[in-house]
Amino acid sequence: MCELLGMSANVPTDICFSFTGLMQRGGRTGPHRDGWGIAFYEGRGCRTFHDPNPSAESEIARLVQRYAIKSLIVVSHIRRANRGRVCLENTHPFSRELWGRHWVFAHNGQLQGIKRLPLGLYQPIGTTDSEYAFCWMLGRIRQTFPEPPRRPATLWRTIRALSQEINERGVFNFLLSDARYLYAHCGTQLSWLTRQAPFGKARLSDADMSVDFQQETAPDDVVTVVATRPLTDNESWTVMPPGTLAIFGAGQPVAAFGS
Amino acid sequence: MCELLGMSANVPTDICFSFTGLMQRGGRTGPHRDGWGIAFYEGRGCRTFHDPNPSAESEIARLVQRYAIKSLIVVSHIRRANRGRVCLENTHPFSRELWGRHWVFAHNGQLQGIKRLPLGLYQPIGTTDSEYAFCWMLGRIRQTFPEPPRRPATLWRTIRALSQEINERGVFNFLLSDARYLYAHCGTQLSWLTRQAPFGKARLSDADMSVDFQQETAPDDVVTVVATRPLTDNESWTVMPPGTLAIFGAGQPVAAFGS
Repeated sequence: MCELLGMSANVPTDICFSFTGLMQRGGRTGPHRDGWGIAFYEGRGCRTFHDPNPSAESEIARLVQRYAIKSLIVVSHIRRANRGRVCLENTHPFSRELWGRHWVFAHNGQLQGIKRLPLGLYQPIGTTDSEYAFCWMLGRIRQTFPEPPRRPATLWRTIRALSQEINERGVFNFLLSDARYLYAHCGTQLSWLTRQAPFGKARLSDADMSVDFQQETAPDDVVTVVATRPLTDNESWTVMPPGTLAIFGAGQPVAAFGS
Repeated sequence: MCELLGMSANVPTDICFSFTGLMQRGGRTGPHRDGWGIAFYEGRGCRTFHDPNPSAESEIARLVQRYAIKSLIVVSHIRRANRGRVCLENTHPFSRELWGRHWVFAHNGQLQGIKRLPLGLYQPIGTTDSEYAFCWMLGRIRQTFPEPPRRPATLWRTIRALSQEINERGVFNFLLSDARYLYAHCGTQLSWLTRQAPFGKARLSDADMSVDFQQETAPDDVVTVVATRPLTDNESWTVMPPGTLAIFGAGQPVAAFGS
């Protein structure tokens, strides 16, 4: 099982605190020793870091923790390999361009027979089921919408239908972004939390670290964090029911599709 | 004018020495203050670092210098913006997937009217002429070869023809890789150097740094470095004539197309 971490914010926000918690699970408090990756959206651009080394020992992870990259959307993943060997091309998040936008995807879970689905225009580079599923979804989205649909909800319904189709083949927890929204699909396990005024203190479950968000934020900031398991032990996380899709924009939930 | 740096090697090799020279030109000895980026191929995977900050002051550049990532193909770029504002999405190298492989592209020079060329399946994310030219080339390659051609030389001739077509529109110095070969097109200025046994000492032009490659290499290592301007002042660089394309594989030149 891998661990996912995502963020959506209404102002460029760093993810140092949550990332510190997640990284502990990469070989220290967790068994996820098979690499990690993170994508930060900045404007239309996207900065990704990938490392097939355990996150708790990674030079690049230390850089990301220290050097506070501020972003509106973040997708991160630490990996415990089940299918596909440990190497750079099998390290999430995966990314592709569609409609002149960066799309980014990270997944945990195993899927059955996914590689029998016919691909469209996107081909996997590595050998994971996860990247295959991403390429299949993106190919279908492109086929359905050669141009981006006018109303975001039209796209959301398509992503929902594709998620359900793959969800039948196994465990499909994923984070996806199209550079505008963060899509969080719970196959079995995913939680989220929105922080906004009045801000309080938060304490990591996996490291001896607390932060007082009141000191770190402006009154209008809104930030949602999505994670496989709650990262803090003194805040109220929303545990998503299996089979649901939540969509976040500018830091808050904008749509939810029930099971 | 931007600066390009590329490498092709027959064994995974770090580029710390050459990169140190290049980074000095990013705001210290050179005027290239508008960001930088680098792509390292490792197996089928590709690790990219992008930073819209000047390379000489970049935290990420320091990491790349310190943390010797070993790679068979590297493409790097430091930018002096002429078209397109300074931001992450306009920072080279650009990358796309074709045939299940990472393609990476970095360019220096200005192009006239490039955005009037009709695009195929690849759309630019940023606003540079460079990314537009890359998307156009890749769209044409994909249209010509829905599947990769059997003989590499068939692809090479197509890349040559597309390069000539764009070269007529201005200055088109570029580095391109398809995860197998490094393509270096000289519009006006590009040089390369192959290092192999017997190895000697090299001294950077832009920083007080020397390296004795005999201490750092095995007898069978072969490494080619391509750069806008020679990076060392005591080795014999091949200055490419304008209008030529050189192709490197496993550290050495494998084909050249004259002007």
